[in-house]
Amino acid sequence: MKTVNYSSVDLLSGYLFDKQELNRKVTLSSVYDRFSETGRIGAFKHGYPEKDSIRPHYFWDSDVAKWMEGAAYSLAKHPDPTLEAKVDEIIDDIEKNQHPDGYFNIYFTVVEPEKRWSNRDWHELYCAGHLMEAAVAYSEATGKTKLLSCMEKYADYIEKVFVTDASAAFVTPGHEEIELALIRMYRHTGNKKYLDLAAFFINKRGTEDDIGRSDYNQSHIPVREQSSAVGHSVRAVYLYTGMAYLAAETGDEDLKAACKRLWNDIVNSKMYITGGLGSTCIGEAFTTPYDLPNDQAYTETCAGIGLMFFANAMLALENNAEYADVIERVLYNGVLSGLSHSGKEFFYENPLEINRSEHFRSSYGERRFPAQRRVECFGCSCCPPNINRLLSSLGNYVYGSENDTLYINQFITSELNCNGISANIKTDYPIGCNVSINARGVSRIAIRIPSWCKEFKVDKIYTEENGYAVIENSGDTVTVTLDMSPRLVWSDPKVLRNAGRVAVTRGPIVYCAEGIDNCENELHSYILSENSSFEEVMENSLVSLKVGCKKRMNGNKLYRYTRSEAIDVILKLIPYNYFANRETTDMRVWFSYE
Amino acid sequence: MKTVNYSSVDLLSGYLFDKQELNRKVTLSSVYDRFSETGRIGAFKHGYPEKDSIRPHYFWDSDVAKWMEGAAYSLAKHPDPTLEAKVDEIIDDIEKNQHPDGYFNIYFTVVEPEKRWSNRDWHELYCAGHLMEAAVAYSEATGKTKLLSCMEKYADYIEKVFVTDASAAFVTPGHEEIELALIRMYRHTGNKKYLDLAAFFINKRGTEDDIGRSDYNQSHIPVREQSSAVGHSVRAVYLYTGMAYLAAETGDEDLKAACKRLWNDIVNSKMYITGGLGSTCIGEAFTTPYDLPNDQAYTETCAGIGLMFFANAMLALENNAEYADVIERVLYNGVLSGLSHSGKEFFYENPLEINRSEHFRSSYGERRFPAQRRVECFGCSCCPPNINRLLSSLGNYVYGSENDTLYINQFITSELNCNGISANIKTDYPIGCNVSINARGVSRIAIRIPSWCKEFKVDKIYTEENGYAVIENSGDTVTVTLDMSPRLVWSDPKVLRNAGRVAVTRGPIVYCAEGIDNCENELHSYILSENSSFEEVMENSLVSLKVGCKKRMNGNKLYRYTRSEAIDVILKLIPYNYFANRETTDMRVWFSYE
Repeated sequence: MKTVNYSSVDLLSGYLFDKQELNRKVTLSSVYDRFSETGRIGAFKHGYPEKDSIRPHYFWDSDVAKWMEGAAYSLAKHPDPTLEAKVDEIIDDIEKNQHPDGYFNIYFTVVEPEKRWSNRDWHELYCAGHLMEAAVAYSEATGKTKLLSCMEKYADYIEKVFVTDASAAFVTPGHEEIELALIRMYRHTGNKKYLDLAAFFINKRGTEDDIGRSDYNQSHIPVREQSSAVGHSVRAVYLYTGMAYLAAETGDEDLKAACKRLWNDIVNSKMYITGGLGSTCIGEAFTTPYDLPNDQAYTETCAGIGLMFFANAMLALENNAEYADVIERVLYNGVLSGLSHSGKEFFYENPLEINRSEHFRSSYGERRFPAQRRVECFGCSCCPPNINRLLSSLGNYVYGSENDTLYINQFITSELNCNGISANIKTDYPIGCNVSINARGVSRIAIRIPSWCKEFKVDKIYTEENGYAVIENSGDTVTVTLDMSPRLVWSDPKVLRNAGRVAVTRGPIVYCAEGIDNCENELHSYILSENSSFEEVMENSLVSLKVGCKKRMNGNKLYRYTRSEAIDVILKLIPYNYFANRETTDMRVWFSYE
Repeated sequence: MKTVNYSSVDLLSGYLFDKQELNRKVTLSSVYDRFSETGRIGAFKHGYPEKDSIRPHYFWDSDVAKWMEGAAYSLAKHPDPTLEAKVDEIIDDIEKNQHPDGYFNIYFTVVEPEKRWSNRDWHELYCAGHLMEAAVAYSEATGKTKLLSCMEKYADYIEKVFVTDASAAFVTPGHEEIELALIRMYRHTGNKKYLDLAAFFINKRGTEDDIGRSDYNQSHIPVREQSSAVGHSVRAVYLYTGMAYLAAETGDEDLKAACKRLWNDIVNSKMYITGGLGSTCIGEAFTTPYDLPNDQAYTETCAGIGLMFFANAMLALENNAEYADVIERVLYNGVLSGLSHSGKEFFYENPLEINRSEHFRSSYGERRFPAQRRVECFGCSCCPPNINRLLSSLGNYVYGSENDTLYINQFITSELNCNGISANIKTDYPIGCNVSINARGVSRIAIRIPSWCKEFKVDKIYTEENGYAVIENSGDTVTVTLDMSPRLVWSDPKVLRNAGRVAVTRGPIVYCAEGIDNCENELHSYILSENSSFEEVMENSLVSLKVGCKKRMNGNKLYRYTRSEAIDVILKLIPYNYFANRETTDMRVWFSYE
């Protein structure tokens, strides 16, 4: 299918609309302010004095570029002269400071200019890719093409350096991103040179020509031979997205098959229930199949966002509701957990468990665990502006179309107007269970049947196709009713960290318990069972749960020959993405089950 | 009670006797050979040339001293001119190379002589302590006093440096050991100066006078104020042993109370079911109460041995079977796991779980887990000679006496002859359940009632006192019958890593499953229950178990709304201390329980 671009979709109300509004009203300016304070914005002026205490970091460009991209999507829907002026100022700086040959990179201009293109791991092509994405977004949003022109010039120069002259010290980027960005450039400009350059980077990757091949950045073998998601998880999903884009443009079946193998490897063996990816902080990486530690999960917010990109790209290759299902899973859980309720603070890592009693610290060392509190800015602050651009372009994920069929991928109150198709969705999902859909200009409507939904009802006759309920469109309102009852979820037994444990979901929302609502330091002692009861409570715009269950009581003997008593208790659960919005406390997603 | 010295006790047959024989026939010479090859033995000649590729390590003295001590205990029972000549040669080297002032330390003589007594963390007093223990042991065993004389001279010099002149750059040792060693010197020589010096080091520790105070080496607060076992676990138990020795000599109730608090803290919140101590490799240290990770347990063999020292010292302060119970727990499990069946290979760390699928290794990093294979020698090779001295002095742990009562602390086939008391124990324990005891020269026999024993029977009338069954001794054979049925053991719910999990014991033996006997990579999928059945099988001189239980079957969905099926299977269990004696494989002690 062709997934419908956000520009044709307006979110109108509801939980995700509120998040988008929070992003527009709070998060975008907060991230900008932090980037100003830390020197990231000013660095575009290239005014960095040699002895400044803050010198530009070698991938600051990408942080700001992602913010600009996020600002662009917001401006497309909500004109805001102040915001637009901020972006324009940065663009003016870029134009002013771009080298005559087309090169643009702050660090390798003002700090170590002699090292241009000398090391694949120094993120020049990664920064370039993000600037290109920002250029496309800003051109689409505002019609202004100054940045786009700069980036076309830059892309031409990159093509000369890497293809024509082969004069760089490396062949493909150490951090993938430019591949998908160049294809977006191609789609926006129609200039096939950018598609070819993207293909060059993808096709050379992992071949014998590639310099410094490593599983860390997915260049250990050629991409068409890859079957296992390895290495740095953000790099991985950015690469896979680029591969899927390329396969969509070229119809390359081998490349598409590799994308499907990698997708299956991720979702069948390396994805947390929250949609989070990356099981270890060592290399911020994928590890081995079914290795999903909860407390030391890395699950970077950016990896979750990248998984959404990859999934949306896969939808364009194959109409299968599974992709939209994963988008929903990671968006509501492992991505939104990255943003605080205030809209100003972020998680880089999104663990599924916090056991503070195990956070050993002493005068001589400490165990490494993810942070327990969100912060406003990181040293490597990729996640905050990634949240910016994701939330302001949420419209990208709602609808798809192919031939005479309109696909409803996400249940979000919204309107679509695009190429003679108009449609709307009305719902208070994911609180309520009813979704009303109207469409004009298409003869069929394909509605995703969520994999979590035990009972899926539509008030029309439908046939099921690849996870979609397909109805003939009469123009009448279609009403979908989803069974939103809380459900227990088990991992496959291969996931040893979840052996004997169960999670709770309601609709797409994964739940967690926090110590602050329950017995701190004893979340592992709660026991769910088939008899557990669930009471739903509205809180903070979503449903919390009061679970009638058991809790095993502490005793005073370390080892014992009888089990300690289990008493009836209430376990309070909140949506996983709500964790750590109050004081620092324990948290748990997977509970004992007996 | 006065625990009876090994010199009056002969082990005659059975499982521990076989281990002692293995140590005598294989382990002692194997450790010596490794210490020769690595330069440790030769270093005593002080012939180290400045540019040698192998230069002495700053605590090699202690490795060899522990070996000498182990050799001494063996020589006491089994004359062996070859072994004795090896020890004598080292002693001759010590005498020859001891400084005129009494100082003896290889590293700080031949490598960095200018740094003598300049850093508390450089183990000079630790090495001195081990040499003193060896000196006492060798004097006791052979009557030869050359090493003892050297060490008296050294102790006198240390007293001058640390007490009279206070000329060292520190006040107390960074690695405790000399405290308990000096008290052994005092007990052997009767020279109160050594007791006073031990008291000096113990009393100064953690006071305002102490330099470089740290929780890492238990010098954060004065010892009488300590209640929580902290820091490096071997240092801790060596200190606590010294404290208990001192309290026994002086009757210091405050010190005794501190020992009891520290003991209780360990056994009620920081001791693995195997008796292992030290929950983290960071500082090889204790962490927080109930923090007992199984796969990343540190549980150094030396800490287990040190716990036996501490427990035996506590028995001398208080007749309570609990101390002997802990000795049995750690000896049969967390200490003997340190030695391979071959008698030549050692574990430094003794984890309670190996999940090889989680042992993430990549070209860019790896997770840290304990080694899966024993080795013959370590860079820091303290554990092998600690095993040597422990096994050759096992007789220390069997009997105790006070007034007219003989205490039977361990059930080991053995004879005791000491101060008019003669006794023997006959048993095939820990395989069989019957123990026959005879004693002459005492009017009461106090037999430990093992805490693991559901049904304890004696064929005489007894009263229970502090965990001992006390009978009037008529001279008749006393027959004890212990219920050795396999038992399920639960942790207190406060131990979160064992939530929903159970271990299996039989008598004092903790059991484990290895992947090689079961489904590799799926040990977490076995489920024990109240209905589990146990079949006993003799193997390698102990009982293995075939457990009729369930196993949850793998499926092909990562997340699911129904549990996967559990089928009936047999789980093969072997004694924990037997793990890793075949090929590298998974291992687990704590199993799911439903």
